[in-house]
Amino acid sequence: MALSTLYGVIMAGGRGTRFWPVSRERLPKQLVTLLGPETLLERTVERLKPLIPPERLLIVTGADHARTIRRHLPDIPRKNVLAEPEGRNTAPCIGLAACEIARREDGAAMGVFPADHLIAKEGEFRKLVKGAAQLLRSRPEALITFGMEPTHPATGYGYIKRGPEVARAQGYTIYDVESFVEKPDLAAARRYVKNPSYLWNGGVFFWRVETLRAAFETHLPEMAKGLEAIDGILGRRDASKRLKAIYPRLPAVSIDYGIMERVETALVIPCDVGWSDVGSWKSLADVLESAGNVVFAPRHLVATVGLEDLIIVATDDVVLVCPKDRDQDVRRLVEDLKARGLSRYL
Amino acid sequence: MALSTLYGVIMAGGRGTRFWPVSRERLPKQLVTLLGPETLLERTVERLKPLIPPERLLIVTGADHARTIRRHLPDIPRKNVLAEPEGRNTAPCIGLAACEIARREDGAAMGVFPADHLIAKEGEFRKLVKGAAQLLRSRPEALITFGMEPTHPATGYGYIKRGPEVARAQGYTIYDVESFVEKPDLAAARRYVKNPSYLWNGGVFFWRVETLRAAFETHLPEMAKGLEAIDGILGRRDASKRLKAIYPRLPAVSIDYGIMERVETALVIPCDVGWSDVGSWKSLADVLESAGNVVFAPRHLVATVGLEDLIIVATDDVVLVCPKDRDQDVRRLVEDLKARGLSRYL
Repeated sequence: MALSTLYGVIMAGGRGTRFWPVSRERLPKQLVTLLGPETLLERTVERLKPLIPPERLLIVTGADHARTIRRHLPDIPRKNVLAEPEGRNTAPCIGLAACEIARREDGAAMGVFPADHLIAKEGEFRKLVKGAAQLLRSRPEALITFGMEPTHPATGYGYIKRGPEVARAQGYTIYDVESFVEKPDLAAARRYVKNPSYLWNGGVFFWRVETLRAAFETHLPEMAKGLEAIDGILGRRDASKRLKAIYPRLPAVSIDYGIMERVETALVIPCDVGWSDVGSWKSLADVLESAGNVVFAPRHLVATVGLEDLIIVATDDVVLVCPKDRDQDVRRLVEDLKARGLSRYL
Repeated sequence: MALSTLYGVIMAGGRGTRFWPVSRERLPKQLVTLLGPETLLERTVERLKPLIPPERLLIVTGADHARTIRRHLPDIPRKNVLAEPEGRNTAPCIGLAACEIARREDGAAMGVFPADHLIAKEGEFRKLVKGAAQLLRSRPEALITFGMEPTHPATGYGYIKRGPEVARAQGYTIYDVESFVEKPDLAAARRYVKNPSYLWNGGVFFWRVETLRAAFETHLPEMAKGLEAIDGILGRRDASKRLKAIYPRLPAVSIDYGIMERVETALVIPCDVGWSDVGSWKSLADVLESAGNVVFAPRHLVATVGLEDLIIVATDDVVLVCPKDRDQDVRRLVEDLKARGLSRYL
């Protein structure tokens, strides 16, 4: 069997309230420049481009962000930015992309990549992406995921427990997936980090489009039916209007829970690629290896006296001051502002 | 002897680095709106106006602020804003004003008022100002100061220790000044606040111009000579240019140290007028009776998570975060910025 054409599907539906006040409803985490001059989405695209040309990179995002993304990424064909009528977790998002790819090409494979994660070792990452695509040649029924090798006892990530080794290739090993593990408490996370069987779930997947569609039929038949309806409308002039009627009725489940945990043919490739989901201000500080205070204020001088372990963020209209270990509460702050009707700050 | 005409001299030479980043080199504390819509200088002028008409209110300030002040206070005749070529403490500033008053009118009295203090009970304050002016009729040789009744063991203020009672008038009592006391440590401040003899030095003074000039001759002869030179140039077309040659050579001493501590005829009137020098962010919080964090951010939403006793100040270009009890270090921060050449933030 020939090597299938690989499409890249970048999931850019995140709202990123945890990076408030830099990320906003109109400018979610993947569209802000948190690290360096490029947005996380731009970096994700650039990371993949040496392997997958822009014509085969699809971006799935919320309808309200599609226009911004098209403007930010002029290299990506406009029709490759797929707008979800509403956010319904990862399975419908990936399903929609699978329909679009099937419409364009028979027998293609797809890789799924979150738009807002950070990968320090990009060359190594591409090598493994290439490996996953090659693996699909010998194992066309496989559903492959990347398992990020833990560097600390993270409680904010889901874990993948690997089972027996199934194959070895140049530079990496492939294992069966034993199970997907929910976010652990600290005690469990401390055990996991010492056990090489536990890997972080980084939300990266590879499969042939037909394999995925078959898995939907077996494990999420309602979804499969919805995707067939989508097959029938894609390419039509009124596709976007019709999608609005179909999409909100798709089951809002994650691909992990809906498919990966249920299939027999899930494989995992352990990766040491300097991965982080940059899920909060504190994790940004960890990525930057900055000690003391985390200060993010592109247009302000920030002066402090005798303070440590604070997050200080300043935008044109908001100042956030929060202890590092309370960074998970930023989300609550945003909800609180919403409840108070302060929507102009959201 | 008739009641002398009373002139008001408002000392507006302060730089107010302790209110950085709201106060700046170009916009010192007396010219920013820290409390309510008016600047502290505007409030000082408004407080005196019912007693002293604008034609008799003089404002002494740094040459670089004179223009701003004339613009802020259109009621005050332009010639009443006297520009010091450089800041040389209070004695030369008051001496310059005394020369200007003498030029305009013989036998006048003057009251000296800091531009950047807060007085909650303005009616009571005016009653006492009137009383001080009347006292100068029966005691033309007196140098009178107001002693603010302490409300807490402040270590940031100088104190005046009163001596024996010398007279009583309606609503107030007059005492000899026993001594001027330097800023105390906390233990001493705690003793002072329990002892009615100790009063805060609020920098408010009253005397006849001739009495002051005579005191300069006796106690600061070098200053007296300099002021005579100033007498000779005021009103001349090139006065401001000539002042630049004379003023920087005047002894840079405070009126307290140079005159008040040395004369035999110093009197003090205790005042309960809700006075504060609003000398720091913390004292601003005390004035506002605000607990928890002190937040000053007219154009930002400030969001905090689980933090107490912080000062958080945001301007268009600077964010300051500082524990309340370290507010005295703000001055050091400003010096540090200067040393680093970050002058655009000063």
